[in-house]
Amino acid sequence: MVIVWSMSGVLENQLRRMDGKIVGEGFHPKAGQPHAEVFALRDAGDLAANATAFVSLEPCNHYGRTPPCTEALIKAKVKKVVVGMVDPNPIVASTGVSRLRDAGIEVITGVEEELCRKLNEAYIHQMLTGKPFVTLRYSLSVDGDLLDQLGAEVMESGGYYSQLLQEYDAVVVSSFSLSTKYFLSSKEPGAKQPLQIVLAKSSGSLQLPTVSNDTSSRTIIFSNKEITLELEASQKGIETIVLDRMNLAAILEHCKHQGLCSVMLDLRGNTADFAEILQEGFEQNLFQKIIVEVLPILGASNKDPLKYMQQNRRLRNLTSRTLGESILLEGYF
Amino acid sequence: MVIVWSMSGVLENQLRRMDGKIVGEGFHPKAGQPHAEVFALRDAGDLAANATAFVSLEPCNHYGRTPPCTEALIKAKVKKVVVGMVDPNPIVASTGVSRLRDAGIEVITGVEEELCRKLNEAYIHQMLTGKPFVTLRYSLSVDGDLLDQLGAEVMESGGYYSQLLQEYDAVVVSSFSLSTKYFLSSKEPGAKQPLQIVLAKSSGSLQLPTVSNDTSSRTIIFSNKEITLELEASQKGIETIVLDRMNLAAILEHCKHQGLCSVMLDLRGNTADFAEILQEGFEQNLFQKIIVEVLPILGASNKDPLKYMQQNRRLRNLTSRTLGESILLEGYF
Ligand SMILES: [Zn+2]
Ligand SMILES: [Zn+2]
Repeated sequence: MVIVWSMSGVLENQLRRMDGKIVGEGFHPKAGQPHAEVFALRDAGDLAANATAFVSLEPCNHYGRTPPCTEALIKAKVKKVVVGMVDPNPIVASTGVSRLRDAGIEVITGVEEELCRKLNEAYIHQMLTGKPFVTLRYSLSVDGDLLDQLGAEVMESGGYYSQLLQEYDAVVVSSFSLSTKYFLSSKEPGAKQPLQIVLAKSSGSLQLPTVSNDTSSRTIIFSNKEITLELEASQKGIETIVLDRMNLAAILEHCKHQGLCSVMLDLRGNTADFAEILQEGFEQNLFQKIIVEVLPILGASNKDPLKYMQQNRRLRNLTSRTLGESILLEGYF
Repeated sequence: MVIVWSMSGVLENQLRRMDGKIVGEGFHPKAGQPHAEVFALRDAGDLAANATAFVSLEPCNHYGRTPPCTEALIKAKVKKVVVGMVDPNPIVASTGVSRLRDAGIEVITGVEEELCRKLNEAYIHQMLTGKPFVTLRYSLSVDGDLLDQLGAEVMESGGYYSQLLQEYDAVVVSSFSLSTKYFLSSKEPGAKQPLQIVLAKSSGSLQLPTVSNDTSSRTIIFSNKEITLELEASQKGIETIVLDRMNLAAILEHCKHQGLCSVMLDLRGNTADFAEILQEGFEQNLFQKIIVEVLPILGASNKDPLKYMQQNRRLRNLTSRTLGESILLEGYF
């Protein structure tokens, strides 16, 4: 048995059980790029013939920004397709499955569906609501202090932060977030970098240090007043949108028009820049997900009585487990 | 094969592998109580003969507050003893193993040693330092706010909080912690309740509502000034120790003299009571462990910009995973 797949990790249990050999893999890097099937079939080459393809989402059957994946699978002479979930778009749901079956390909649906829903959460949300999927991310110390740092190696290839930058179409950062310290660049091999949306709210002048040499990086500045940009020659092209009032709706609208499906707000740097859009986001229900990195340190909490804890004290062996609806953290001094 | 064991959960993998039948179980409820072996042998009865005993800690070989467990194992005609870790007390280390071997019992040591070290962490610490093992516990919201609440059902039998109350010899609570809301009573079957140490620092008069009817509950009040107790008839006997200055060292000294090995500081209620002892504990390195329950809610953080989050907003599907030294939390709105 040979297998073509186009999803990361989700079906590993399935694969192990079937004792299959993986002949090709692919994932959908970002909105506007070819779909995962295209990369997986390219990777498999001739071995795709008579193989089983595992896909987290029903293969598309329409000409959008890319040609339909159903035709690619048929052309590659795949024998069987295992589908995690059918397309959440009611207009096209099951049309991909039907097209494959009409072409004589065996199709199974709903395999590891819950995991696939999570994998496709941004797409599902955008499809059902017409709005980008928005995630808040921040770091906390064990005593609940908001931190301006990330854990060691999380920005390296395989690190969660590097992976988030690959997953999200856009990342909203504060006006200080373009300094080297806040450098935003996914280290995943072949990653398409997210659009960097810089909030420039609190300062009259904004200094942008040298940004990535990676030509795939794009940056746009949202400002709520005229600001003076002090840019290096290489940064002269950075687009600036001046709003009457800083607001998340306008930013998300921009993302939508750019075909961007998922947006991460990264609360680092000059976090005061986020004040209004956080308030607005909560009031208008614009946030879907929250990601919190808890670092094994005690912060500089100003809350009684946690403020009496020693700052920057490191903990050893920080572990976590789920307890009903809560998470229990344990660590050692 | 029949098995007697005296540790909770740690050796389950071992047991499964050996396809053994458990004929008796026991655990050491608390300082001053008979050791786990006694309970396990009692539970096994005649079936202990020719059985293998699994123990997390080397059986004691000396007459302390209880008779030596080595003699109990020999008398029960156990055939083999599997020891997680030898006694950390250098004076008695390996004497239990030697005694068993002299009596013709096969002994294996160092099985699942790391897990056993964790299970016996309080005893090890107390043995090596002469001081009680001290754990800080508190609850946080996902945005890092210190909460005065616990998750649903954690105080029920099997819940982590009920289990902590069983594990710890003493729990230090604030002056308001004896109200029904803060009622401290382990619901584990047969649990010996911890000594309740009440910090009465901030008020001249202290109201203690009805405490447990459970006669095994004991309460002691530490105060840094003379306080007026308004006690019900059933509570007249509560002991009060007046310190010149509230300090953790004095509390721990008291615990040590009572033969108490482990102490948990539970940051709920009138948390201002903890200010000095937290400061002292950090400065003097008196804390060994930290336990944080993260509840799936957004709190009432006063930190910029988290304060703009909606209070008491609940999250769905809060999950966690370990990432190097950090913990990553994910939840959905
Ligand atoms: Zn497609
Ligand atoms: Zn013993």
